[in-house]
Amino acid sequence: MSKKKRIVIALGGNALGNTLPEQMAAVKTTAKAIVDLIEEGCEVVVAHGNGPQVGMINNAMIALTHEDAAQPNTPLSVCVAMSQAYIGYDLQNALREELLNRGISDMPVATMITQVRVDEKDPAFQTPSKPIGKFMTAGQAEEVSQKYDYIMKEDAGRGYRRVVASPKPAEIIEIGTIRTMVDAGNLVIACGGGGIPVIRQGNHLKGASAVIDKDFASCLLAKELEADSLIILTAVEKVAVNFGRENEKWLDRLSVAEAGQYVKEGHFAPGSMLPKVQAAMEFASSGEGRTAIITLLEKSREAIQGKTGTVFHA
Amino acid sequence: MSKKKRIVIALGGNALGNTLPEQMAAVKTTAKAIVDLIEEGCEVVVAHGNGPQVGMINNAMIALTHEDAAQPNTPLSVCVAMSQAYIGYDLQNALREELLNRGISDMPVATMITQVRVDEKDPAFQTPSKPIGKFMTAGQAEEVSQKYDYIMKEDAGRGYRRVVASPKPAEIIEIGTIRTMVDAGNLVIACGGGGIPVIRQGNHLKGASAVIDKDFASCLLAKELEADSLIILTAVEKVAVNFGRENEKWLDRLSVAEAGQYVKEGHFAPGSMLPKVQAAMEFASSGEGRTAIITLLEKSREAIQGKTGTVFHA
Repeated sequence: MSKKKRIVIALGGNALGNTLPEQMAAVKTTAKAIVDLIEEGCEVVVAHGNGPQVGMINNAMIALTHEDAAQPNTPLSVCVAMSQAYIGYDLQNALREELLNRGISDMPVATMITQVRVDEKDPAFQTPSKPIGKFMTAGQAEEVSQKYDYIMKEDAGRGYRRVVASPKPAEIIEIGTIRTMVDAGNLVIACGGGGIPVIRQGNHLKGASAVIDKDFASCLLAKELEADSLIILTAVEKVAVNFGRENEKWLDRLSVAEAGQYVKEGHFAPGSMLPKVQAAMEFASSGEGRTAIITLLEKSREAIQGKTGTVFHA
Repeated sequence: MSKKKRIVIALGGNALGNTLPEQMAAVKTTAKAIVDLIEEGCEVVVAHGNGPQVGMINNAMIALTHEDAAQPNTPLSVCVAMSQAYIGYDLQNALREELLNRGISDMPVATMITQVRVDEKDPAFQTPSKPIGKFMTAGQAEEVSQKYDYIMKEDAGRGYRRVVASPKPAEIIEIGTIRTMVDAGNLVIACGGGGIPVIRQGNHLKGASAVIDKDFASCLLAKELEADSLIILTAVEKVAVNFGRENEKWLDRLSVAEAGQYVKEGHFAPGSMLPKVQAAMEFASSGEGRTAIITLLEKSREAIQGKTGTVFHA
């Protein structure tokens, strides 16, 4: 029997829906796409984003302080932790059900609370850039800014949102346990929301006010697990250059060098396609034979069969 | 080398504090007590309650619906899931730090999102008894009762609280993964808050509006892991009969038969010492040589050395 292909999937937080009913519908589609890969003979590990979800949880914890003055504010790291369970519980259930529906009854599904260490000197802490939570009026923004020391940014005339730092992941604290579980044949959900961001202080890990980019966290997870492929699932089937222009071109395969050239030329939007491309480049260049694929959730099976998606290679 | 003694610890939700700052202080004390047992040569698995925490999260999710009409209400099962991460993240961190402080650097600590199946015909669903969350006025109670179909109960003149069903745990869905992790030498936190209550519907697991008693869930976990001991940590060093009376008597060792007699005589308060004694009896009678101990958190080391606590045996 040939060794199974090990794959880390990076799932977008936006693909998981903005509310619980949306999430419960979304995880069904997601589970189908993931179990497709398992049927293709892959060993799969799932990481996911949490942008809308961690914002919602953050808002709920703030709303609680409005109704209960004795309630202290909840740090963002704790909100990220809660988002791992909020998403993991539904996703793990949908995966379990889809596996059973297809007659796969010997694959346990498990969600791991995962901490990811970041560097407190990461320059991202000086320039918070990741918007989370709902839009607010200038007055509301001023209030939470003063009350909680939040950094609020005006967003293209649509109102104000909290922006948080998005530092690079440096180390997955629970990687040993994740490896044990994957090696034992579990379908593992880990590094949810990019992982709970923590800073090392001696033997202590201190929660950081940040949300780690899930594509970079997934890349680190894939490297640590010595995966064969990193699959970044998003809203487009392929990556394009000159996107939206007359000379728009969808890419099938590209080397890390070619991708780097396109990055330099500014083809990819920061905070959107750029981090995905950067994570894909980093993984593809991290070891012999490793590839990264960016494609649409629903096309994951075809992508792993080499029929679609944009494949990054060394 | 003799086989390590395997122990499941049931930790009270109340011992974890009512707010995050309280929790962060409480987990330090808790971690010391647990690592004491590891230094005594035990293999430890940790389960915990979530009464105050799941109530707080439930309140936060309700508060969010007051501020954001588009936000649907969050089911209790999802709140339990979130409480597993809210508590697990802090507890896992404190345990990791305490282990490192004592020079134990080869023991990974991990929190597992755990679902526990209950029977939808469990009579507990007909008589919700477990109070969660904050006290409300009669008017507030009427409002949430109408809006969310919550059952509200007046509590000894202190106001109204939501009461939820507390059905018996029937099956730990993720038991296979928990076993794998424990066997591989991980210090595992599982069945938080008694586990996320779910009901089986074919291949689907549907969240149940309930909070499972953590002592019964810990007992099931201990049985499934074939533990040697179940240690229920609480606010008293020993169990007493005729508690608070002149003939009050603290118990050192008692057989399941003796304990059963005391239960019949009504020595233990329902919702407080009674479920602990019942869980201890159930575990002690579940296999040869198995014991259950009820004691104070800070006395766990002395209890495992046989110096204190109330020991239940077959």
